[in-house]
Amino acid sequence: MPFELTPYLEERRSLINEALLKELSRLPSDSRVRAAMDYSLNAGGKRVRPVLCLAATDAVGGDFQQAMGIACAFEMIHTFSLIHDDLPAMDDDDMRRGRPTCHKAFDEATALLAGDALLSHAFEMAFRKVPGIDPGRYLKVLHAMARSVGCFGMIEGQMRDLLGETHLVSLQELEAIHRLKTGAIIEASLFCGGVIGGGDDKQLAALEAFGRRIGLAFQVTDDILNVDGDPNILGKATGTDAARNKSTYPALMGLERAREFADQLIKDALKALAAFDNKSDPLRSIANYIIKRRR
Amino acid sequence: MPFELTPYLEERRSLINEALLKELSRLPSDSRVRAAMDYSLNAGGKRVRPVLCLAATDAVGGDFQQAMGIACAFEMIHTFSLIHDDLPAMDDDDMRRGRPTCHKAFDEATALLAGDALLSHAFEMAFRKVPGIDPGRYLKVLHAMARSVGCFGMIEGQMRDLLGETHLVSLQELEAIHRLKTGAIIEASLFCGGVIGGGDDKQLAALEAFGRRIGLAFQVTDDILNVDGDPNILGKATGTDAARNKSTYPALMGLERAREFADQLIKDALKALAAFDNKSDPLRSIANYIIKRRR
Repeated sequence: MPFELTPYLEERRSLINEALLKELSRLPSDSRVRAAMDYSLNAGGKRVRPVLCLAATDAVGGDFQQAMGIACAFEMIHTFSLIHDDLPAMDDDDMRRGRPTCHKAFDEATALLAGDALLSHAFEMAFRKVPGIDPGRYLKVLHAMARSVGCFGMIEGQMRDLLGETHLVSLQELEAIHRLKTGAIIEASLFCGGVIGGGDDKQLAALEAFGRRIGLAFQVTDDILNVDGDPNILGKATGTDAARNKSTYPALMGLERAREFADQLIKDALKALAAFDNKSDPLRSIANYIIKRRR
Repeated sequence: MPFELTPYLEERRSLINEALLKELSRLPSDSRVRAAMDYSLNAGGKRVRPVLCLAATDAVGGDFQQAMGIACAFEMIHTFSLIHDDLPAMDDDDMRRGRPTCHKAFDEATALLAGDALLSHAFEMAFRKVPGIDPGRYLKVLHAMARSVGCFGMIEGQMRDLLGETHLVSLQELEAIHRLKTGAIIEASLFCGGVIGGGDDKQLAALEAFGRRIGLAFQVTDDILNVDGDPNILGKATGTDAARNKSTYPALMGLERAREFADQLIKDALKALAAFDNKSDPLRSIANYIIKRRR
């Protein structure tokens, strides 16, 4: 029987949403910070990072429930970054996924604190929901998670992205920015899921290689869709990158070469999983989905 | 020979500064985020939290060097909170300790990201610098640290402080705000230092009780000095709380009762250490120093 992605994603997302809801219910009910965390965490996110994390645990033959804490932690970290990125001092966005952004629904101070609290709560939860693996090994998981956030990952990427907005950057710099800004967390989600599932060094390296490629492919595809996508299907305006003179893959290498590049990245991502059995079908299917988004 | 606080603090601060410097030197040298982290971390802070953390390790008979990683993590968390609190969306302060605040020296986006990066780096470092204790026990240390930051600690306190600025709060609410905003991190610094030093449950409870009292005593003393302190000695203006109609201990209970309250808190703090031997002299001496600041 071929693997069916849609019901798989639905089931996993519902488990992840349940776990996130349960986690937030532990926080003081009268807290305004919690209300803002809640608002942004339940804003219809696709749960890409936790889904990948749990799928990596599956791929190496582990029990995905063991990785649920870390998977949710990655979603909280992702949400924290969206809240802060939307602030007036950063991208100054009023709307996200059809709803007012956190600082519009609450206020700037509350949004700032809600982001901070999501980041610290991601760790607080990770320390509490210790999976049944060797604690020393778990500390390595936590280290990989934390490393993907700061100056070696997402935050450094966001800084460079802001600095690069004023001019067209080189293709090399664009790739470095994306690898830091979105790639680091995706790679770490897969790596951490793999470690918790009991993966060996070779498998973990393969999961990271897979993550690096799909992370970039996702970004290139986003850039392409901003050029040739259907606004009705995407649910957001297209052509905005070109209007803002933004450094994108289509802008730097042309639309056709950007498409080829995305396809090649997905082929390389699938190749990285060659040694895995059919327990990695969800990961393969997610990679193929990234291409299908364009069709 | 009586314990001498000044040379002790000088020595410890110099060790802490050295460890923080070494830690930051690991970050990418061309990173603007790192430059801003550096700027705020080396802004002449008194290193109160790491000093207390290491002193707690001493007090239970442990090796303070084992706690250096966690001690530095607490200083990074403290610095992150100062950077974000100074932002225009929060307290909107242009100067701190005689220098422009981070967002004035850099810009708002950089300050926001530098705060975020300090928080995530605090955890990254803590996972790397694992002390020679049982990893399961260490996870408890990390959990206590993370818990003191978010909705059960500092961030919740800052939120309530902002919400309380518009009216005079009750004495009970004022104490709750301070216990969350500054007390939680101080208590956790002492608790974590004690756990790393091998303290038993009774000792850890005593260290937390000590922390709760000195944290509050420090705040009450700050409030008192804002009424009757010498601006030349303090290095900052006085009378500002009354001008802003801020809820403070002198405002809510009168100056004389506020003084008595601070003295009582220090007495109670010292009482909490009754079962400790002279290895806790640094902690006792720090508690007494809080009273001496007023003289």
